[in-house]
Amino acid sequence: MAEKPVLPMSKRDLLSLIGSTAGATAMYMAMTSLGQAQASPFKGPLKLDGDAKGASVLILGAGVAGMVAALELSRAGYKVQVLEYNDRVGGRSWTLRGGDTFTELGGQAQTCTFSPGNYINPGPWRIPWHHHGLVHYCNELGVALEPFTQLNYNAYLHSTKAFGGKPQRYGPLQADYYGHVSELLAKAVNKNALTEDVTSEDSAILLESLRSWGALDKNMRYVKGNATSDRRGWAKQPGGGLTAEPVPSEPMTLDTVLKSGLWRGIGGNLTYDHQYSIFQPVGGMDSVAKGFERAVGQLVRLNSKVTAIQQDEKGVTVSYDDTKSGAHLQAKADYCLCTIPLSILSQIESNVGDALNAAIHAVPYMPSIKVGLEFKRRFWEQDEQIYGGITSTDLPISQISYPSSNYGSKGPGVLLSAYTMGAYAYEFTSLAPAERVARTLEWGSQIHPQYKDEFLNGISVGWHRVPWTLGCFGIWTAETRAEHYKNLCQLDGRILLAGEHASYLGGWQEGGITSSLDAISRLHQRVMAG
Amino acid sequence: MAEKPVLPMSKRDLLSLIGSTAGATAMYMAMTSLGQAQASPFKGPLKLDGDAKGASVLILGAGVAGMVAALELSRAGYKVQVLEYNDRVGGRSWTLRGGDTFTELGGQAQTCTFSPGNYINPGPWRIPWHHHGLVHYCNELGVALEPFTQLNYNAYLHSTKAFGGKPQRYGPLQADYYGHVSELLAKAVNKNALTEDVTSEDSAILLESLRSWGALDKNMRYVKGNATSDRRGWAKQPGGGLTAEPVPSEPMTLDTVLKSGLWRGIGGNLTYDHQYSIFQPVGGMDSVAKGFERAVGQLVRLNSKVTAIQQDEKGVTVSYDDTKSGAHLQAKADYCLCTIPLSILSQIESNVGDALNAAIHAVPYMPSIKVGLEFKRRFWEQDEQIYGGITSTDLPISQISYPSSNYGSKGPGVLLSAYTMGAYAYEFTSLAPAERVARTLEWGSQIHPQYKDEFLNGISVGWHRVPWTLGCFGIWTAETRAEHYKNLCQLDGRILLAGEHASYLGGWQEGGITSSLDAISRLHQRVMAG
Repeated sequence: MAEKPVLPMSKRDLLSLIGSTAGATAMYMAMTSLGQAQASPFKGPLKLDGDAKGASVLILGAGVAGMVAALELSRAGYKVQVLEYNDRVGGRSWTLRGGDTFTELGGQAQTCTFSPGNYINPGPWRIPWHHHGLVHYCNELGVALEPFTQLNYNAYLHSTKAFGGKPQRYGPLQADYYGHVSELLAKAVNKNALTEDVTSEDSAILLESLRSWGALDKNMRYVKGNATSDRRGWAKQPGGGLTAEPVPSEPMTLDTVLKSGLWRGIGGNLTYDHQYSIFQPVGGMDSVAKGFERAVGQLVRLNSKVTAIQQDEKGVTVSYDDTKSGAHLQAKADYCLCTIPLSILSQIESNVGDALNAAIHAVPYMPSIKVGLEFKRRFWEQDEQIYGGITSTDLPISQISYPSSNYGSKGPGVLLSAYTMGAYAYEFTSLAPAERVARTLEWGSQIHPQYKDEFLNGISVGWHRVPWTLGCFGIWTAETRAEHYKNLCQLDGRILLAGEHASYLGGWQEGGITSSLDAISRLHQRVMAG
Repeated sequence: MAEKPVLPMSKRDLLSLIGSTAGATAMYMAMTSLGQAQASPFKGPLKLDGDAKGASVLILGAGVAGMVAALELSRAGYKVQVLEYNDRVGGRSWTLRGGDTFTELGGQAQTCTFSPGNYINPGPWRIPWHHHGLVHYCNELGVALEPFTQLNYNAYLHSTKAFGGKPQRYGPLQADYYGHVSELLAKAVNKNALTEDVTSEDSAILLESLRSWGALDKNMRYVKGNATSDRRGWAKQPGGGLTAEPVPSEPMTLDTVLKSGLWRGIGGNLTYDHQYSIFQPVGGMDSVAKGFERAVGQLVRLNSKVTAIQQDEKGVTVSYDDTKSGAHLQAKADYCLCTIPLSILSQIESNVGDALNAAIHAVPYMPSIKVGLEFKRRFWEQDEQIYGGITSTDLPISQISYPSSNYGSKGPGVLLSAYTMGAYAYEFTSLAPAERVARTLEWGSQIHPQYKDEFLNGISVGWHRVPWTLGCFGIWTAETRAEHYKNLCQLDGRILLAGEHASYLGGWQEGGITSSLDAISRLHQRVMAG
């Protein structure tokens, strides 16, 4: 199996440039503007009314798209079988714990040696409140959700080019940016520079709102004092008893804030996908897969590598190898719902129509890597009072995410110590796994000096080197979407595709779920129409 | 026991006016600017070195201030006894569950009839990350913390005077305010209205930052499109399959945003006390009290109503009644640490010096009420996708807080359905408990029409009518603090005060903890000095 060709240079360079200069947050924002990372139109449980008359559907892939289809189609009376390449369900919705082993393209194997209870989600790791489909299935399948700490004012913004490389707390930076913005706009209003844009009545309300929002003083200035320290924090925090009086802190100048570039970290927390409330499954993202497995796991055949998909007027025949026994096998059904990533599907022999075939080959996949490091103790909580949240940095690691569970626990803890896309991801995977961990440790220690003393072990998943997906998610452009998206989603004879690649929610489980529900609804209409 | 005189009119009117026009968030902001609601200087565990030589300390009150002192003084070798009025430890750090009963001033008794697992915290209900002392003791005492959802973009901002009384989601309102602010400031910069304030180099960065932060288009406009919908949400959310293309939503005009007054709800989430990360103890705030109880509960005598505090050169004698047996009793010790709220202490006979006595009588207490309603199901989650967070309103209920635990659970749920201070709190408690619940139900149904169908039961705690505190917390002004605060905190002979009233962190448990640690450190110095 050959590695997928790299992305067209212009796209890759654009994304990697954004990734390297402004961190993963900006990467997500850019993805968003390209239609990759969005929300969900899921409105409620699917109803497939009518008699399926024993029609059979073969589902390829037991990720969330495939499992949702298995659940809903079997409920509607279809005969369902699912073929899955891995020896587990869930696909990219995956959790690594101590004892887990996996082998990447090229044969390099890694074993996770985390302590009991610790884990990393190499794939999806959070669930926005508006991913209604996924939240619905979590509720239905008994998958407990807990808050994911997306924004933590005490996490860091870090740039090697600002503040001498010293990480800055998020809170004061945001407070000072907001304060200066409000002061400047108040000045402009008071200079009558905006009389064409704002009525005098609204100007008065605007000034009142700017004072409130920006913590300005009575002269509409953002200055050192109790009001601004109540946003940015104190030089000496207030307390109890004698000598308890607080000492205000000194705001940064506008010039300092702007030249630092750290304001880039603010916008990412305001995007729809990262707004509170946002969740993670208790115990790891694979709780979602386990929930589906409890419901329809008996329909899944694991260790089944699809080698060919052929259809004719009577049905679909899928050839597959049992990866344990090496046996060559076949499965037949009236219809096939294929959720295999396009990066893989494009290499599987099939007789789909030209339009679908062209669409399958039109979508490149995002290179991406996550590195998880385990440390002896939660020094980020104990030494730095960082409880969950994300530090962003212009280092190749792009971000450090602190665990959103078991706050205050005394044992070893795991940090998502790198999560980056684009060129940096390729650079990472050009190294052997041990070396990736060593580099991550080196880079991260620029932010947390405790890294080297506290390090226990680490593991990395470079998605473009994962044999069964060869990338993190499919990348659509306005052009490819206009030309190929509809063809990718339409029923081709007896074959229908689903997955995050067949959605406007690229890279999110919700894309897989909504695409699957849409696909099986149309499949059901076809069956009902006879 | 007479009810405490009401606050001086000017102060009360100021606070109630703010409370009634802008909700509890603005109330907190006003409190903040008066030095009531702040952070903590706690730096680490207390060390009381040296031999206490068997000195004894009588602690009055088993709230967090008293319990911290009991823990640390007993560790340092002191003989410690704690007298507590209630039949439980914790004081205002209190949780009501099904079966709990309490009686307010005037004799009206209420019994909580919540379902198992449901609760309300009538007093403190959240723990900011920077309340280092409280977080320290939670860690030490095995009190598990979980995230408190303070800000939820899908909760409501509600004004009876805006949008025809229809509640608005927080997210779009904030997005539109930020977008218009950024567009206006960009206009001012591009009109060269701020050349005296911002260098041309910084102006270029400022414009770039405004585009990023405010989701402006290439013409620096905040307009309908994918970029702004990725902040404010979509008219039709993106999904998977065919017909999945998103439809952008229409931003509100600047005039609409400003005239609504709902922008007042933004600033409160930016204040230091409400910034993420913020926590609650798992299972209810009284987990904190139970943690202390496990450690030093054996030192506490419950049901002990202090009636007099007398000191001489040899020690302190405290007279108290056993509220169960009616017996008149006395306790003696070398020193007394008194954590009784000033509203109560001012009515207890004592022979403290004139300066301390004046300070004890100088601090009025905040009227405040919380109402908890239990409903048959979590309709706010199931119907409205509100998972935790707070809705603010100009109705007398001021706010509705959604539970930050057991997300997605199918059984009955409890909403903090009113939390208000000032005049509204007096109005509430002028009614019988059942009527308070009925009014809360009526008001809340303007925001959640499901209220009436789903209602099960309710309970209210009006703090100014709680016999053992007669108010929510002590209110300091700049003037009273200048005149009395130092006198309140200083050792008076053998008597020393602690509690949130002896801090710059009024109304927060951290104020009680830091004040107690400060007090016992000074007491220990005195003992060491012989």
